[in-house]
Amino acid sequence: MNSPANITDPLVLFMPSGKRGRFPVGTPILDAARTLGVYVESVCGGRATCGRCQIEVQEGNFAKHKIVSSNDHISPKGAKEQRYEKVRGLPEGRRLSCSATVQGDLVIDVPQDTVINAQVVRKAASDRVIERNAAVQMCYVEVDEPDMHKPLGDLDRLKVMLEKDWGWKDLLIAPHLIPQVQGILRKGNWGVTAAIHRDMDSSRPFIIGLFPGLKNEAYGIACDIGSTTIAMHLVSLLSGRIVASSGTSNPQIRFGEDLMSRVSYVMMNPDGREAMTKAVREAVNTLIGKVCEEGGVDRHDIFDCVFVANPIMHHLFLGIDPTELGQAPFALAVSGALQFWAHEIDIDVNRGARLYTLPCIAGHVGADAAGATLSEGPYRQDKMMLLVDVGTNAEIILGNRQRVVAASSPTGPAFEGAEISSGQRAAPGAIERVRIDPLTLEPKYRVIGVEQWSDEEGFEEASWATGVTGICGSAIIEVVAEMYLAGIISEDGVVDGSLAATSPRIIQNGRTFSYLLREGRQGEPRLTVTQNDVRAIQLAKAALYAGVKLLMEKQGVETVDTIRFAGAFGSFIDPKYAMVLGLIPDCDLDEVKAVGNAAGTGALMALLNRNHRREIEKEVGLIEKIETALEPNFQQLFIDAMALPNKVDPFPKLSAAVKLPPRKTVSEDGIAGDTTPRRRSREERAARRNRD
Amino acid sequence: MNSPANITDPLVLFMPSGKRGRFPVGTPILDAARTLGVYVESVCGGRATCGRCQIEVQEGNFAKHKIVSSNDHISPKGAKEQRYEKVRGLPEGRRLSCSATVQGDLVIDVPQDTVINAQVVRKAASDRVIERNAAVQMCYVEVDEPDMHKPLGDLDRLKVMLEKDWGWKDLLIAPHLIPQVQGILRKGNWGVTAAIHRDMDSSRPFIIGLFPGLKNEAYGIACDIGSTTIAMHLVSLLSGRIVASSGTSNPQIRFGEDLMSRVSYVMMNPDGREAMTKAVREAVNTLIGKVCEEGGVDRHDIFDCVFVANPIMHHLFLGIDPTELGQAPFALAVSGALQFWAHEIDIDVNRGARLYTLPCIAGHVGADAAGATLSEGPYRQDKMMLLVDVGTNAEIILGNRQRVVAASSPTGPAFEGAEISSGQRAAPGAIERVRIDPLTLEPKYRVIGVEQWSDEEGFEEASWATGVTGICGSAIIEVVAEMYLAGIISEDGVVDGSLAATSPRIIQNGRTFSYLLREGRQGEPRLTVTQNDVRAIQLAKAALYAGVKLLMEKQGVETVDTIRFAGAFGSFIDPKYAMVLGLIPDCDLDEVKAVGNAAGTGALMALLNRNHRREIEKEVGLIEKIETALEPNFQQLFIDAMALPNKVDPFPKLSAAVKLPPRKTVSEDGIAGDTTPRRRSREERAARRNRD
Repeated sequence: MNSPANITDPLVLFMPSGKRGRFPVGTPILDAARTLGVYVESVCGGRATCGRCQIEVQEGNFAKHKIVSSNDHISPKGAKEQRYEKVRGLPEGRRLSCSATVQGDLVIDVPQDTVINAQVVRKAASDRVIERNAAVQMCYVEVDEPDMHKPLGDLDRLKVMLEKDWGWKDLLIAPHLIPQVQGILRKGNWGVTAAIHRDMDSSRPFIIGLFPGLKNEAYGIACDIGSTTIAMHLVSLLSGRIVASSGTSNPQIRFGEDLMSRVSYVMMNPDGREAMTKAVREAVNTLIGKVCEEGGVDRHDIFDCVFVANPIMHHLFLGIDPTELGQAPFALAVSGALQFWAHEIDIDVNRGARLYTLPCIAGHVGADAAGATLSEGPYRQDKMMLLVDVGTNAEIILGNRQRVVAASSPTGPAFEGAEISSGQRAAPGAIERVRIDPLTLEPKYRVIGVEQWSDEEGFEEASWATGVTGICGSAIIEVVAEMYLAGIISEDGVVDGSLAATSPRIIQNGRTFSYLLREGRQGEPRLTVTQNDVRAIQLAKAALYAGVKLLMEKQGVETVDTIRFAGAFGSFIDPKYAMVLGLIPDCDLDEVKAVGNAAGTGALMALLNRNHRREIEKEVGLIEKIETALEPNFQQLFIDAMALPNKVDPFPKLSAAVKLPPRKTVSEDGIAGDTTPRRRSREERAARRNRD
Repeated sequence: MNSPANITDPLVLFMPSGKRGRFPVGTPILDAARTLGVYVESVCGGRATCGRCQIEVQEGNFAKHKIVSSNDHISPKGAKEQRYEKVRGLPEGRRLSCSATVQGDLVIDVPQDTVINAQVVRKAASDRVIERNAAVQMCYVEVDEPDMHKPLGDLDRLKVMLEKDWGWKDLLIAPHLIPQVQGILRKGNWGVTAAIHRDMDSSRPFIIGLFPGLKNEAYGIACDIGSTTIAMHLVSLLSGRIVASSGTSNPQIRFGEDLMSRVSYVMMNPDGREAMTKAVREAVNTLIGKVCEEGGVDRHDIFDCVFVANPIMHHLFLGIDPTELGQAPFALAVSGALQFWAHEIDIDVNRGARLYTLPCIAGHVGADAAGATLSEGPYRQDKMMLLVDVGTNAEIILGNRQRVVAASSPTGPAFEGAEISSGQRAAPGAIERVRIDPLTLEPKYRVIGVEQWSDEEGFEEASWATGVTGICGSAIIEVVAEMYLAGIISEDGVVDGSLAATSPRIIQNGRTFSYLLREGRQGEPRLTVTQNDVRAIQLAKAALYAGVKLLMEKQGVETVDTIRFAGAFGSFIDPKYAMVLGLIPDCDLDEVKAVGNAAGTGALMALLNRNHRREIEKEVGLIEKIETALEPNFQQLFIDAMALPNKVDPFPKLSAAVKLPPRKTVSEDGIAGDTTPRRRSREERAARRNRD
């Protein structure tokens, strides 16, 4: 549309993409951006009415780029832009790129409203910008009126104009819209906005919504269906802004706390699958209502939905019987990414909205793990990254640009506070932090909902409101690790009964000993950590660590470079204690990061940029899945991992940061014995395996 | 899979396609056919279990092709083929082409069960073979069982096998099947048959059905929804055989006899559109039940449906308000071809069945006209072909390989016997043939349901059963034409009252005269042709002829080479009388053919061969539509066409075959005057127009 640029034309640099090019004076900034492939939204198609194409001039001398950029180098506001500003308002410095033209060298800032702030309370992942390339685009057109000489149908003429103005070829249309086309065109006086979905699995673009006049809003949801919690983001597909984020508990809990009990429910009840599918879909619909209310959005303005879930939730949500996932060979009904009309899954949003589910990696490594993988991107970088999502089942991804391997490990519910005598869910009144004095063996702790530590003034008064009711998952990790650091338990995890002589905190409990964390006031439970509690944690962490080691062996590495903890649990545990326990392999503590609901972040990425869908579909196909149960040396790795931090693996980086106690073994009845560290080398271990 | 052929390899010729090639000894005949692009069905994928790939060896010396073909040149029946023959039976001479291999030169006959016998009672269109290339293919595969080391989902493994064995890439699946995949695979012990639709508007192939084991049946329906009648073929998509054909009346008749009264109904009643949509869909479902019962087919084995209809029926069937079609500019909501899931239109067949509607040509030239155009194919040949479908609205197509033009003309209901004083629908008791003795002016006629002509012995007795109740459409044409040939009416259509003096058949009727066709017995009506009846026929035929002439002018031709009458009406009228009336232009009478429900035949073609869909989609885009009402000289053409056969156009070919009466004009009060033929030349006419 413009004459070809030459060397004397003004230079325009777009930020943050850094793309640059020369354009003749008079070129609209929007055209320049498009020519360079810089994504700038526009709904009205350059009519200066939607206001979506705003940019800002960065003024100054950008020596590095040899550009002196100034507002004098962009055309003054013309009539259309002035009208827009008067009617709708323009923030200071903002311009409409469809109307403003190049007059000289420019540095143009394309505002990116989409910043993912991972939903993590204590350790915020660094903010990240997701480049926008949503599957849905809103396109305003003015359609020719019917003409007896050219008897194309109204819909067909609409398509002609969408091709002419917006370049959409071979458009299809959602069937429910066909009977509405004529009415909408006439209501809009031949000016209509089409919602175009350009990521249909058919690969042809689809008209999924049609509105009279200018429709300047379009939203999407990204949702992670967890066994316990359903989490959702509501996002503007036009600005990328997260409008609301919220969560709700998964109502399937009433059919069974953990996944396997839900599979059993399906197997035992003829209508079980249907009831659970209905329950989860209703919960999702209710949650959509909640985020829409929070964001002041009409749920019928939602046009695209991306879901992640673990395999059993994935199947139940899609109405698939998960029975096969409850038994070897854990066959997924479908592993690939899927697309639906949202209404086919009974999701109540716009009738033309689409629904996309990320691919599952394996029978126990679901679309949620795929979402976390997309979010953290081990395959996008060179460091050997370990990504773990700890829950009842831990999903483990290990890899880098060269190769990614994945496994799941049955950690059981101990990390969530279940199967622990004083365990409870994270809620007000739960102990969440623990420290033990290695000399006195006296503890101090923090309680959710109480500001003070237990040894600080005012704690007792403050804690009356919540009570002190139990130990939550993150504190279980800490208390066992602290017990180890304080010498209360041996590297084999046995509570040293001999300490009962010197500390009232060590109390006999039949043939074993417990650690008394808190006596409990009137009406409050006595909180102890029993030998069984320690064993439960050891079993859980050994399962996780053995899975990680298996993947490290597959990768042929002795150490990992960086660790990501995904999931709610990962957000609350202290990496140091996780490593002291030997839950994760030795690593620089600075390289251990909690990333919150990475699965949900992955869903959000796939919602905002359809290229991320292709990316994760491709990567999931490349990920090598390891079935831990089928690996001959998993057993030995598991046994070695029962010790704290590990029977055979050194933790040099941890040792440098934390003073680990000298090794001592204690027999099951709590009597200390040999204190010589017993660390078998890899060669010794192999030799022994060969003997067996 | 076979080594490349060389010049010494046997030569194999396939009939009726005539495709030929050399293949190494041992090549399966099926492979040879596929290599040459000869379509041979196969469901089992070469396992010799479906029996769909049957062929026959033509024995003999085919000198023209230099082939001596013999059953000795094909391999003897192997174990698999023998087993098939024993279990399922093979007709004499038939072989399974997947098992039989090339051993020498062969002429192979691929049996084509698909022969269209146009549903015409009196003038059968020549039988035609539709080359089969149905949108749906049945594909049997044996799927790998799940493997923990390769955690692809069951569906994903099914897709892998469908690509490996059948070459389907990028397969999608109908959403309702996703929850069923695991059960079906296990029920079939990992052997399943997938129904693949390869003509989705998405262009990616779709799994639309899935069955345990070998599923060796697949059907489709082709349906023409007329204003009065709904006609349907049920066809095997695997053999191409028409299993059943039937029709039913359109229940929308209760909302209005003709199309415009149905549009009015929609405009006047808030639920009118919905009620009519429901009525026509229910009628289609009932008719599906009827053809399925007739053919002994389960309606859930129907996987593909093709529909044609006039624009208003098309819209109502698809749930679109037809109001815009009732008023200028007669805007179609949609003109292009459409695809749906059949269940989206409430059509009760297999849940995964697809539904295709042919494109509409214009606001008054619908998908039925497109079907007729596909069937008769003016664009496929060199002769200038006139295709007319006469009803309340006549659809007119004129063209050849170079160019096709189309129009509609408002003929009104006269041709269907409405608005005629003694008119009635074609039914037992209706006069269907008429002859008038030019000397005595006495008539003879035939009555539907009676074998004898009225002047033959036994007619009176035989006709008591039915009575003689009225004049049907085809007889209206004949009686008016015969009245003209007998000199009873002038070229201007005026009944010559002077004849009342010599014939009791000419009777005065106020200021005009009528022709008494039959006095009527006790309880029977007196059947006359009044001056008004003649006028109604003149108006109708003039509208049709003027439309045809307009198209001839657009094409720049003075004559047409061949004429096709589509529709029920066309099947019953005698071309000679149609031409005497000047309903159609002068043409060799041998070149005037009735083609029955050509629209339905077009639907059948699109059902059996998806290439015909592309063909008609393309052609409809190329057809030039003429809006007769907007053409300045339509009025004059119409006035000229009021005369019999025409005021200005000569009918030399008709004159050679039929003795036309000398011209005489009769004034409106029935008095004969000037008998000089007045034929204005084209030049005179043009000159006069310029004066006006």
